Formats: sequence, structure tokens, C-alpha cells
Amino acid sequence: MNELLNVNEFLAAAAANVDPAVWCYFEGGADDEVTLRENLAAFTRWQLRPRMLVDVGEVRLETTLLGVTVSMPLGVAPFAMQRLLDPEGERATARAAAAAGAPMTVPTLTSFRHSELAAASEGLRWLQLYVQRDRPQTLAHLAEAREAGYAAVVLTVDLPHIGRRERDLRLGFAAPADLPLHYGTLVDVDPTLTWRDLEWVRAATELPLVLKGILTREDAVLAVEHGADAVWVSNHGGRQLDGVAASIDALPEVVEAVAGRCEVYVDSGFRRGGDVVKALALGARAAFVARPIAAGLALGGETGVGRVLGLLRDELMLALGLVGCTRPEEVTRAHVQRLAA
Amino acid sequence: MNELLNVNEFLAAAAANVDPAVWCYFEGGADDEVTLRENLAAFTRWQLRPRMLVDVGEVRLETTLLGVTVSMPLGVAPFAMQRLLDPEGERATARAAAAAGAPMTVPTLTSFRHSELAAASEGLRWLQLYVQRDRPQTLAHLAEAREAGYAAVVLTVDLPHIGRRERDLRLGFAAPADLPLHYGTLVDVDPTLTWRDLEWVRAATELPLVLKGILTREDAVLAVEHGADAVWVSNHGGRQLDGVAASIDALPEVVEAVAGRCEVYVDSGFRRGGDVVKALALGARAAFVARPIAAGLALGGETGVGRVLGLLRDELMLALGLVGCTRPEEVTRAHVQRLAA
Amino acid sequence: MNELLNVNEFLAAAAANVDPAVWCYFEGGADDEVTLRENLAAFTRWQLRPRMLVDVGEVRLETTLLGVTVSMPLGVAPFAMQRLLDPEGERATARAAAAAGAPMTVPTLTSFRHSELAAASEGLRWLQLYVQRDRPQTLAHLAEAREAGYAAVVLTVDLPHIGRRERDLRLGFAAPADLPLHYGTLVDVDPTLTWRDLEWVRAATELPLVLKGILTREDAVLAVEHGADAVWVSNHGGRQLDGVAASIDALPEVVEAVAGRCEVYVDSGFRRGGDVVKALALGARAAFVARPIAAGLALGGETGVGRVLGLLRDELMLALGLVGCTRPEEVTRAHVQRLAA
Amino acid sequence: MNELLNVNEFLAAAAANVDPAVWCYFEGGADDEVTLRENLAAFTRWQLRPRMLVDVGEVRLETTLLGVTVSMPLGVAPFAMQRLLDPEGERATARAAAAAGAPMTVPTLTSFRHSELAAASEGLRWLQLYVQRDRPQTLAHLAEAREAGYAAVVLTVDLPHIGRRERDLRLGFAAPADLPLHYGTLVDVDPTLTWRDLEWVRAATELPLVLKGILTREDAVLAVEHGADAVWVSNHGGRQLDGVAASIDALPEVVEAVAGRCEVYVDSGFRRGGDVVKALALGARAAFVARPIAAGLALGGETGVGRVLGLLRDELMLALGLVGCTRPEEVTRAHVQRLAA
Repeated sequence: MNELLNVNEFLAAAAANVDPAVWCYFEGGADDEVTLRENLAAFTRWQLRPRMLVDVGEVRLETTLLGVTVSMPLGVAPFAMQRLLDPEGERATARAAAAAGAPMTVPTLTSFRHSELAAASEGLRWLQLYVQRDRPQTLAHLAEAREAGYAAVVLTVDLPHIGRRERDLRLGFAAPADLPLHYGTLVDVDPTLTWRDLEWVRAATELPLVLKGILTREDAVLAVEHGADAVWVSNHGGRQLDGVAASIDALPEVVEAVAGRCEVYVDSGFRRGGDVVKALALGARAAFVARPIAAGLALGGETGVGRVLGLLRDELMLALGLVGCTRPEEVTRAHVQRLAA
Repeated sequence: MNELLNVNEFLAAAAANVDPAVWCYFEGGADDEVTLRENLAAFTRWQLRPRMLVDVGEVRLETTLLGVTVSMPLGVAPFAMQRLLDPEGERATARAAAAAGAPMTVPTLTSFRHSELAAASEGLRWLQLYVQRDRPQTLAHLAEAREAGYAAVVLTVDLPHIGRRERDLRLGFAAPADLPLHYGTLVDVDPTLTWRDLEWVRAATELPLVLKGILTREDAVLAVEHGADAVWVSNHGGRQLDGVAASIDALPEVVEAVAGRCEVYVDSGFRRGGDVVKALALGARAAFVARPIAAGLALGGETGVGRVLGLLRDELMLALGLVGCTRPEEVTRAHVQRLAA
Repeated sequence: MNELLNVNEFLAAAAANVDPAVWCYFEGGADDEVTLRENLAAFTRWQLRPRMLVDVGEVRLETTLLGVTVSMPLGVAPFAMQRLLDPEGERATARAAAAAGAPMTVPTLTSFRHSELAAASEGLRWLQLYVQRDRPQTLAHLAEAREAGYAAVVLTVDLPHIGRRERDLRLGFAAPADLPLHYGTLVDVDPTLTWRDLEWVRAATELPLVLKGILTREDAVLAVEHGADAVWVSNHGGRQLDGVAASIDALPEVVEAVAGRCEVYVDSGFRRGGDVVKALALGARAAFVARPIAAGLALGGETGVGRVLGLLRDELMLALGLVGCTRPEEVTRAHVQRLAA
Repeated sequence: MNELLNVNEFLAAAAANVDPAVWCYFEGGADDEVTLRENLAAFTRWQLRPRMLVDVGEVRLETTLLGVTVSMPLGVAPFAMQRLLDPEGERATARAAAAAGAPMTVPTLTSFRHSELAAASEGLRWLQLYVQRDRPQTLAHLAEAREAGYAAVVLTVDLPHIGRRERDLRLGFAAPADLPLHYGTLVDVDPTLTWRDLEWVRAATELPLVLKGILTREDAVLAVEHGADAVWVSNHGGRQLDGVAASIDALPEVVEAVAGRCEVYVDSGFRRGGDVVKALALGARAAFVARPIAAGLALGGETGVGRVLGLLRDELMLALGLVGCTRPEEVTRAHVQRLAA
């Protein structure tokens, strides 16, 4: 693992070493994976505009998310069933994220109780929430997360139905029967959830509410109007509706619609520190990664996740300095441009 | 066949299993097949814009075409000589389409009499018509279709001459002498047909008239002015004039020109449910497929066609829900965007 | 040769069968061959807009060039040293072109005297002229062409210096010492020729004057102002300055600048009848081909050239009909569009 | 080496013949090498617009840079540790550049003293300068260059930190301990340097000051305002911040911002004489190359560098003539266009 130089090499090594019938679940996207590929390709159409002769002798990555200080504008996006990759699963990820000072979004489909993850480390943890048909179960879930010191609720809004992931179908992937999933599974998700139900969620928890899975200006406006504390631009890593825009391409219209009224995050396709700088320039406050973390977890457990976060931190620090900024807040819209056709 | 997960896999399996000297006819396009490829590539330049937090607990695909209810906005486009792929040919397709509640467009080059197809199933059938030099023969054809309960006439207007399909030339494809074609062949088609002759067609049948093969706003306006009940945007699956636009790219200008005065359909290159949603968003009332049906027919006869229609229905239902709509009519122009250059 | 279905197959067969150290000269382009490839790729960015329900029962290709009737808007572009491909060389080409009713542009670097070509056939012949440092030699050349009944002079203006064709350098191509070139070689060409010298050319012959090698609106205007009877848009088949636009892409600005004041021709990259229709739609009166003719000549001499011209004529006739026109003059700017980005 | 026809072949030969653990340093770029590839690809999106019937019987390449006559608008960009490729290293390059009448930019990381290079040839030499934390050392460096007759100082402003070049990391490249680097190494570079420090540099030398590494209009304006004598558009050959624009794409905005107030140079990706003509057309006064020189040096020492410069000169002369110009100054913005999307 030590010879792996970047996130892409981590992903290639995971693909080569993890059981394909398992890795398919983490690696694949929906249908023809057009959006999966687009998530990567889109970054090459945004170009950095570096400014020179700025004093970048000291570059600092700290920022705040929802008022809480984090070590860098990069966190762990939620992804399910991490124990398929490492016995310590979400616990390993939580420890590595905490050590890195990065926020971890704990998935509803975790195999550890939130109290166990809280006991494992003191890092910043957010709860990724699926609202389920069984509302009391969701209320209990929210209460347990609150109890465990989670700092925010990240409500996933782009999975009323499960995307068609043909790699899984082809290899017969299924969640193992003996994998504990304490807080329900995707089949329990409520597909009737509407903006009106957000009031119910709001009432059910005092935690800040992040809406994850927004791709349009229209929904960004609705999110703000319904009191979201942050909007998380995401196409679910290309795993839900194939044929939608890359997240980085959807980001500008969301940022414009939000107009500073709440924070904006983004995930899907981030592989390099420079990608994160592009997201900052387009108005995101932070970027999140899942597959890179999954690869680190699969290859080296907590240490592997730490390596991945460390690599991305180093790259981000370098890219920030080379673009002529010393802190995330200094990156502006003028630091990025669309590649001219 | 049961292991085939999507339409592209059906097509690949058909290419691998059907006699190349036969499959070439169904698979190939004109000249360099630029338009054939473009029909597929163009879909990646249209991106879905999914809306979240819509109640999509129940998604229904039913719609109406020319006032008749169908189970989904997807039907069978006409393609000739289906008995080359399965002994039951058009009869198998008709049965599967009827079972699926999808309209079938029966080709002029069918090997069954319309009465035989009517006897085989009670599904919605439209007649694909070539007007022939021998007008009495065309009148007889129309009368027979009317007799057989066909609900519309789909006049193909883009084949005054036969496109140059070099795969056929290369492999020596020719319609077998013993294949019955009761209603004439392509060499009988009248290349002098003009807009004025539409009046004659109109007078020759009381059925609704659909013009298939329109690619420009100018012709769309003429179609409406000449009383067409629907305009069918098509480049004949890339089999006629090579170098024309993908059908999905021609759709917007036709829809704009029609301006709601009649229904608009589209075919060529549809392989996924999401493709159909894009067509709906661009203003089509329904999409039609031929090669996917041909593949299903070749691989499994009536069952195979049913599998293909079932796959597409499932994908369409999922895509509709994930884009945030519960019925085809809810899809709007705002649900699709052109990929930014 | 009879199994070759299109011009691309002729070119592939020639590349496979002709001595590489000879074919390189006919096949190659300048430097990195960016323009050579662009000449082909550019056609895919222009799309035909076919009109339906036009009476195309009878399609006629005849047109006039400089007032003279030709059988189709397609002719033979000049290319040198045709006897390297076939013992009969330019004479075979002249006979085949005459039989096809297509104009032939005879190169300055022909191995036959113009009188020999005149004796060989009665077809329409134009003289491709390089003005040489030795003006009396050029005057003699013009007189001889006039004597031989040539109908126009095509002055090549894009070769003040010889492009860098690295295929030739790599394979050591050189014109054989025993190949007669009666009218001089490229090293004799006068690189100091200017617009002012056109007056001298004009005075030296009464034949209509065509300027071949124009790529910009500025030069098109100058050509008209200096009394050119036609402007021939060409990048010399990608053999002179690499990195210039495809001829078909340069055509619109030239046509606009000429504004109907003289005829406009185009060459470089034409491989299909549909390509010629695109050129007509963009305002060219005729298109010219060289490499396809060279391939036909190499593979079958006069018969081969005839086959190539016949194939292109058939394709052109079909494409014209399918685009909804019955004569070249009916093709308008509305029959073509730029592929939307 | 004599069979190598162009710069690309020199580069391929170097890659095949030089120890990979050494050549990686010269060949590679930062991170995913997106910008490295873009530097080449971008040239194909700029097309030359050649003018015809201009007297190009005599093409002359001489121009002036900062008031000094050079034999052509092409020079040697700085690149470090040339003795890794040839025992004579920078001395061989200096001799070849001098013989070619091309300016050489001597790197801070040279293995020869400036006096040695001055003794080796009388060509035009510029000093590439990294300002180091140890300012007295930089002052000494400047004084020594002045002493050695250097005609300008090229201050590199895009390396406050060293780009992440993964080829080097992968192959374990490190500067050999026994390679003398008299003027410091990259780790000594001062990352706190700002525009204000330019005044200090200005005061430290009377030589003209060139700022190398500018990619934006904003920095171009600042450069002019801070008295730069020239702005050098560069992305450091794709070796610093990956994901920035190709230099040739950044050139127009810099030229526009400079508005003639100082000279503009450009490097990164130049492989052909035609590339240089495009740069001239976009407003550069000269282009610079490094990797081509490195390849020549590796393959043939001084002779190899001479061959590369000779090839580029020949190509540039030809391209200039074919675009219809006889001197670099005649190339205008109208000689280039963006490839239409």
C-alpha cells in the first residue's frame, strides 16, 4: 500500500485485490455508467487559474462546516456496509477520519451502533439518514445519533428508489445475511417523502439539516426555503439516475441559486486535491469522497483510510498554494474557468 | 436469454448468435454509419435534471396515443421481414406487444396478413405504410388494415429511394425468395410522392395519419398544415441518408415547430428507459424501438420480445421516478438540459 | 476491385497493394497530418437536413461549370505523376473522366503532353498551372494547353514552397529520373508570385481563370476583385500547411465573401456522395477529388477511375434524392447544419 | 539521430534510449498530467489562416527580444540538470543555441558556473532565476550572471512549491549527490515571494526582467504595473499545477491584458514550426522549448541540440512562408482562428 502514489492507484489496487463480487458494489454505477464516467471527465473541463507572487509560505486548510472547525474542506461521504471491506468497517473509517480531523458521514447502513462509533473516536460525525416508511424507527435512529454526539443530519433525497446497478446484478452481489444493519436497509426507504415531510424531520431533531442529492437550481431554492442548513450537490456517485450531469457541473447552478443563504457541499468523482480546489472555486464549502475511502479501507483498514486522507490533504495543500491561496476561503470564482470549446 | 440485463446485451447476444448474413440487415445503417452511431452518442449530450422530494411512491406509465390508452409511452417501431429472425415473426412481436400493452407498428413488409396478426392478439396495432406506384394496391392495403382493426396509418416518408446499406451488400443479403411479402416490397415504393399526395392518402382512409421520417422544422410545419395527426421524428435508424442528425437532436426543433398542434413521436437509438424520459422531456409523446425488438425476437421469439419490453418498462418506471415524476405527462422541458460544451 | 463498395475501400486496397514507397506520395499529408485527418473529421460536424415528400422520381446531376455542362458537380482534382500508379497515368484518368462526363484538372506535373491527352479523349479538361520562375516556359505551357482545347486554367496559389511531407522523407520517395515531366517540377515554382502577377496570367491566356488554394474570406475577396472566374477552396489535401482548417469548414466564409460574384469549388476529404451534397449546401458549385481517383487508377487504371467516379455518382444521386432535391441547384444552405456542440 | 524527422521523433527516441529513471524527470508532468497533454492538444484547436499570393521568395526569421537581435523567434526554455543527459550539459546547449542564434535561458539549477557558459560561447544568454530564502545568495547569483554577460533575468514565479511529479516518485528519481548545482536547488526557493519583492529584484539588477509562469490576465496586468520588461506565459510544461490551461490557450488573455506594454513570450507544448506561428499570431514575440532541447541533448549532445533547433527553424521558415508572411512581425491575429465547435 505504501507504494500507492495517489487515489487512482488506490482504486486500481482495490479493484485488483478485493473480491470482484464485493468490490462491484463499491465501484459500480447505474445503467451504462455514463454519469459515473462523466463525474471524472467533467473535472478536465474546469481549469484552474493560478495567481502568482502570493505569499504562500504557510498554507492552512482549516475551515468550518456548520460552525464546527475541521482540519480541511474535505470529508468522508457516506457509503454503506463498510465491513464488507474490513472487519472494523465504519469504526476504522471513523478513527481514521477523526485522526485526520475530517468529518465522517456515517451511513444509515452501518454495521456498528452509533454509540460504538462514538466510543471509538472523538471525531466529527454526521448522520446520513434515509427516512423510512416506519417513522418511529427513523425517530429512534435520529435520537440514537443525537445521543452519540452526531453534529448534523445528512438527509439523502435522491434515493426514493434504488438505482439499477448492473455490476451487482451481473455478479450476484447481495448484502450478506449475517451483516448487521441496525438502522434498516434501502428497501425500507420511503419513496413518498416530499418537501412537506422536511418539516417533520426538522421537528424530529435539533441537529443542523443537510440535504444530500440536490442537482438543480430549483431544488436548491426549495432546500433553502425549507430551512436546510446545507445543500449537498451529488449524483450519488453515479449510482442512482444514469444520465444526469456530473456533480461538479451541477455545482455552479446550485451555488448561484443558494446565493450564500446556506453552505454547499459536493461529492462524486473527486480524486485529486486540485479537484477540491475547483469545487471551492465554484462555491462549495467542502468536498466529500467515498470510493477513495472505500479503497483505502479495503487495502489497509484504518491505516489505509488514513493514507488516503493524508494523500488528499497533501495534494490539496499543494494545489491551494500553487493556485495562490493560503486558506480555503481565499479561493474565488476567478480561480477556475470553463475550458473554451 | 435470462442472464441478459439490458437492451445492449440483447443486441450483443443477437450479433453473436444470429447468422451474420441475416443480422446485418437488422443491425446495419447507411454508408459509413455516422448517423447510426450518432443516434446513440447524442443521448449522452442530453442530461436529465432530476427533481427530489417528490412523492414517487406510485409511478404509472399509462398514457394515450391518438386518444387510445397504452401501458407506457414506448412502442414497437416498424421493421421488415421479422420471420427471418423467428418463424412466428410479426405474429410473435404482435403477441408480445399486446401482452405488454404497447402499440405495435406493423411493417408493410410483413410476412403475415393483417388479418392473421389481428387474429393472433388484440393489442393496439398501427399500419406502417409505403405508398406504392400501384395506387390500387395501396388502397387495398389500407382497406385490409382497416378491416383488421388497425388504429392508425404510419406513412413512412423518408424512403423515396433505398439507403445504401453496405453491410447487406458486403454479405450479400437479399430477402429470401420464399419469404411471403403480401403487401409489396421497397422497390415498389413511389419516389414521386409529395405533400399534395397526402390528400389522396387522407381520402383513402379514415384512420389517423402519422408521418414518419420527419427531421426538420420545415417539414414538421408542413405535416401539421397537411393535417397529420402525429409527426414521427426518425432517421430510419440511420439506414437511409447517412450524415443526418440523431433523431433525439432533431426532436426539439420539430416539437417547437409543431407547437402542440399534433402529437410527436421519435425513434432511433433508444436503448434505456432514461432515453425515453429524455424524449418525453424534449416534447415527444412516445418513443419507439425496432432493433431492441429484433434482438428479443431473434433470441427468444415472443418471449424474447416480451423480455425486452419488460426490461424497458422497468427501466422507464425507475427513471421516471428518479427524475421526480409519477406519470409521463409530468416530464417537462426543465427535466433535461444540453451538456455544456 | 469489383468487390470494393466505396471510396474508403478503394483507398484501403490501394494502401495494401501499391508499393508503400510510391503510395506514400499520394496518401500522405504535411507534418503531423492534423489537417489531413481534419479534412475527413470535419464532414461529421456538418449534418444534412433532408426534406421529405418531394417528388424525387427523377434526379439529374447535370450542372454547368464556367458555362460548360458537366454530368455531375464532381470532378477530378489535379494530382501529379499519375504514371507512378498506372502506365497510362493521366491518359487513363482523362479517358475515364471523359466517359463519366466529369471535368479533369490536368496537373502541371503530368507525364503526357497536353496534345496526347487531347488525342486520348474529348472530355472537359482544365489545366492546373504552377507559375514558374521561367515565365516564357509558363507562357509556352499556357499556349500548349490552349491549343489542346483546355477550357480553363486552375492556378494553384498555395504552393510557393513545398509542404513538408514526412511520409515521403521517411520512405525516401523521389520522382523517378525517367519519369517525363514536360512542364516542369515543383522546384521551378515561383514563390514571389503576388496578386499583381495575376494580371500577367490574365493577359497570358483568354481562358477562364480559377484560383485554387483559397482558405480565407480575405483572399476570396481579393480573388473576385482580381477577376477570378472561380475560387477553389482547398488546403491541398492537407499536403501544404498543416494546421489549417478543413476545406469544408473554410468553404462557408469563402462563399459568403464571394457573394455570388464567381463560382466556388472545393476539394480535400470528399469520400461520399453525401459529402458533395454538404458542399453544395454550403455554396460550392462542385467538389473535386484526387486521392479516390489515385486509388482507382492504382487498382484498375482507366477502369478503376471509372469505377470510382461511378460509385461517387451513384452515391451523389441517391443522397441528392434523399435530401429532397432533384438537381444540384436545388440544394440550399438550409439543407445543412452545424452539429450542435 | 540523422533519421529523426521531427521533434516528436526526437522525443520518442529519447524515451526509448535514455535511462527511464532519468528521462522521467524531463518528460513527466504533475499529477495526472492533464495539463501536460492539454499543452499538445490545445494546438489542434487553433487553426492557421494562410494568405496566398504574397511574395514569400525570401523569408527571414530574425527578430528582436528586449531589443537584441536573435536569429528567430524561438529560444531555449530553462530546464534543470542538463548534465544528466550529456556530460557537457548546459555547455553543450549553450554552444548549440549560440550557433543557432537562439537565446538560451540558463537554469538556476545548472551544473556549470555562468562564467563557464560565457566562456563556452558568445550566444545570447538569459538567467532563469529562483529567488531563494537566502537573499544574499540570490544577490550573488545575480551579480555573477551580470558578470557573465547575461542579457536578462527570467524570474520564475510559478514554483513557490514543487509540483507533484509522480513519474519521478514512481521511479525514485533524485538529483545525484555528485551533480554540482552551484546556485542552489528547488528546496531553497522562497515561497513567500510577492509582487512587492519584485522591487527588490528590480533593485538588485539592471538587467531587463522577465516574469515566467504567468497564466492570467490579472497577473499580466500586475506584471506590467510592476515594471516587467516581458511576460512569459507558461504552465511550467505541465509540471507544476495540474489542471491549468494550456499555455497557448492562456496566451490570448495575457496578450490582451498586456496591450503592447511589454513583450510576451510563451512555452509549453511547442513541437512544430507551425505551433510557433500560432503563438506569433496570438501575440507572442517568441516561443521557447525545453523538452525538445532535452531530447536533442540526450541523443546527440551539442550536435543533437543543433539538429533540433535546425529542424524547428526550417519548419518555422516554411510555415511562415506558407501562411503568407516573410517576417515574424507580419503575422497577425487574423492568421489564426479558433476551431469552430
